[in-house]
Formats: sequence, C-alpha cells, structure tokens
Amino acid sequence: MSGAVRFQTCGSVLVTGASRGLGLQLVDSLASGAFSPGRIIATTRNPAGAQKLQELAEKHPNIHIFTLDVLSQQSIEKCVEEVEQLVQQEGLNCLINNAGINVVADFQSVTADKMIENFHTNAVAPLMITKAFVPLLKLAASRGGASGSAPMGIQRAAVINITSLLGSVELNWGEGANNFKWYPYRTSKSALNMVSRSMAVDLQPDGILCMVIHPGWVRTDMGGSQAPLSAEESISAILSVIGGLTEKDHGSFLNFTGEQLPW
Amino acid sequence: MSGAVRFQTCGSVLVTGASRGLGLQLVDSLASGAFSPGRIIATTRNPAGAQKLQELAEKHPNIHIFTLDVLSQQSIEKCVEEVEQLVQQEGLNCLINNAGINVVADFQSVTADKMIENFHTNAVAPLMITKAFVPLLKLAASRGGASGSAPMGIQRAAVINITSLLGSVELNWGEGANNFKWYPYRTSKSALNMVSRSMAVDLQPDGILCMVIHPGWVRTDMGGSQAPLSAEESISAILSVIGGLTEKDHGSFLNFTGEQLPW
Repeated sequence: MSGAVRFQTCGSVLVTGASRGLGLQLVDSLASGAFSPGRIIATTRNPAGAQKLQELAEKHPNIHIFTLDVLSQQSIEKCVEEVEQLVQQEGLNCLINNAGINVVADFQSVTADKMIENFHTNAVAPLMITKAFVPLLKLAASRGGASGSAPMGIQRAAVINITSLLGSVELNWGEGANNFKWYPYRTSKSALNMVSRSMAVDLQPDGILCMVIHPGWVRTDMGGSQAPLSAEESISAILSVIGGLTEKDHGSFLNFTGEQLPW
Repeated sequence: MSGAVRFQTCGSVLVTGASRGLGLQLVDSLASGAFSPGRIIATTRNPAGAQKLQELAEKHPNIHIFTLDVLSQQSIEKCVEEVEQLVQQEGLNCLINNAGINVVADFQSVTADKMIENFHTNAVAPLMITKAFVPLLKLAASRGGASGSAPMGIQRAAVINITSLLGSVELNWGEGANNFKWYPYRTSKSALNMVSRSMAVDLQPDGILCMVIHPGWVRTDMGGSQAPLSAEESISAILSVIGGLTEKDHGSFLNFTGEQLPW
C-alpha cells in the first residue's frame, strides 16, 4: 500500500512552518493528492503574510490555517485550543514538526547566541509543541482501539519530526563533514534527534508513533538553488515513507528514501 | 605505556568545573600522581568558595586556580588572558571541558528554559571555551613539530570533553531509556557530542586532538550516592584513557573503560 493511500485513512495532519519551503509543499501535496486527509492544519507565524498558503486554502476547503509562533508557549497553547475546537473528539492523527531555521555559522563565526537561537527553534520548539498536542494525539490514538491493540502509524497517531542528515554525528566525518560546517544547525538537529528518541520512549504506551526523517537536500530558501531535489520530489518521497510507517519505525531516523540513517 | 606516565610529558592541563565532583578529583589525581603535568590549571566560577580546591593548591604548587564562569564570554576571554600569562610560549597542551550541570526534567516537567539552560552550560560553553583557547592549543601543537608531523595526543595538544552515555541517541532505547528520562541533560550531551565531532574536524589541520569521554556513573553531587563508581575510580580510568589517546581516537566517543560508544 503506498503512502498516499494511507493518508486517506488519516483524519487530520498538522504541519508547522507551512508558509513556504517544505512545509508549504507538504500542505500542497497532501491537499492535491488523490487521497487527501480529512483536515490539513497548516500553521505559520503570520498567516496574513502567507500568500501562497492562503491561495492553496482557497482551492482546498480541507486546509485550515492557524497562527503558531513555535518559540512562544502562549502561541502554542492558543493553537492547541483552536485545533481542539476544529477536530473535537477525533483528536489529531499526525503532527509534522517541520518548522526550522538554519543559523549559518562555522567555527570562526559561531556565537553562544547563534547556537541557542537555532537550538530553540529546531529542537526545543518541536518538544514543546508535541507536549502541548499530546492530549489530542492521545485522543486520536485511543480511537484506534484500546491502548496498544491497534497498529501504530499515521492512521492512528504519529509525531513526525523533520530532521537532517547533518544531524548525524556518525556521518559528520570525512567527506560528510567537509561541506557543511554549520555548528548551530548540525547541533540543533542532533539535539532534535535525541528529543525525538526520548519522546518515542514516552509516547509508546499511548500508541503514538514518533520518528525523525531527513527530507534530502532540497531546492528551498534554506537548501539553495544548487540542491539536487525539488520540493515536490522530496515531499512525494517523504509522504510515501510517512504513510507506510509501522511500529518497526517507531523511534527511528529515516532518509527520505526510507532507509535507516546512523545517529 | 600507562596514561599516568604520558601526563609526565604534558606541560599543562586545564580543567573546568574544578571546585567539586569529577573536576576536583581530576585536579587531585593529576597533582597526586607519580608523574604530574607541569601546570594544572583549575578553573571555577568562584575560587573563594572552592575550599577543597584551595587546600589542594596549597599542597601542590603546580596547581593554578583561575576564575571562569563558563556562561560568560567576558569571563572566558579574561581566563584565556590569565592562562596565556602563565603558560606563555609553551601554550596549552590539554583542555578538559568538565564543567556541566543536570537540569533534571522529564517529559511532563520539561520547559524551554530548562532545555536551553542545560544546553548552554553543557554544549555551548565547551564550544566557546575551546574557541577561545585555540590560539594557546595551536601554540602547544606547533611545538610538537611542524603541522601534522608529530603524533596527536595530550603530550601535544588535545581537547577532552566530558560527555555522558546518556547523550547516546542509539542507546536511548529499551532498557537504556527507561531509567533516566532527563530531556535537558540527554539533549545537551547529544549536542555536545555533535559540537565535539565538528570541532575534531576543524582542529585536525592544527594537530589538535578532540574527543568525548563518558566518565561512568559516579558518586558525586550529580551522580548521587547509589552510583557504582567512586570519583577516584572514574578519574583513574579516564586519565588512563586520556593519557593513551592517539590519532585513531580523534573525533571518537569513548567509555571510561576505553571502549567506543555508539552516537
């Protein structure tokens, strides 16, 4: 069964950072696919300025745009309230923590502030957002059957964190180390990997799947024009992987091709 | 050749967080060993309050105590100036980033502030301290011979970062995950591992060795009274490993027993 087909049985998907780049493409591909989830919740810091997202929402009535500043606990809690009113007793099936930044700095130019800024957005925010959405994820997971009885996956409840190959400590060596000496970004993604693995342990008893996925090197504002993958290609691959996730993928670090990556 | 013997040829060692716990024991064991380094530079946030360290320094004239608040860039730069006056053209052979904290919080109690506090002290501070000491480390490394010609190790120049097994994402699973669900601490140590691996890449051309080591679970204020190892046992093992480090250990994650650990 392909990933796209599985999204048919996924009632709701929330994507953070949906105003541009991979987040916008995620929303677009989810909405345009033959088997679209019931509700696509697209969050962005400033909906009024997210023109492309607004245009998508005009075409697809199952796209719902909410304000979310991932660095603000108040904003996170307000967003949860709004999503709760939308999904009600169905809960939230799939949370995709996609919002991220790249505070480019090498060994010479890195500062404590740059490290903390990137860490907050890329590692801490997904943790705080997931914590806040746990009641709605639990609700969706419990509708999949008594605790532990239904198979894990996005049709039940899942947290997908968009990480990077650059967050692999193991691969940060030899050829893999020489191209992207980005201390804040690499460190934030390693930290996200640990946060995600810890959350996988804590969410397992509720039947909520949690994993991290590397989207490939993609032609977005962040990836630059020389990247080999288009956003469509990356998201098509990611959605196929996400749609097919099962219990064996819980706590894993997967490439967009579906292969396992080393921590 | 044992680790202790190798320290004989190490002109200077700097230990952060030397007022108590493993840092104090590091200074004690280095000073009391049969083959003590020429200069043991012990740093602490508040030397006046570090009574045990002061007592050690009275017994061992090669212990030099300097003020270092690892969170303050100003304090870091002042400490470098003071160390420079002490070591002069000999440079600094071995920097041991030992200072660390454990901001205990599980999934329920973790907050963004707790995550950032632990990250700053355990991952960012070692980066900023190492950056600031690079000129002195380079000086020591260059005295070991023309760049790249002398073997790597603490007798030349090395950065040793005290990490934790709990920073291994791979081992944060199954039995390994269930005992210590400390989000801020685990995440900070994963981040430190990435920082260290990145620094290993950047310091290699200057012949400066960089690696991370897990000290074991030790009976200190942080480790608690139930830990299996005494501080003496841990530090004896660590010094043996550190003393024997060679180029093959550059960029590695070692246990206090000398075995490699997974990232």
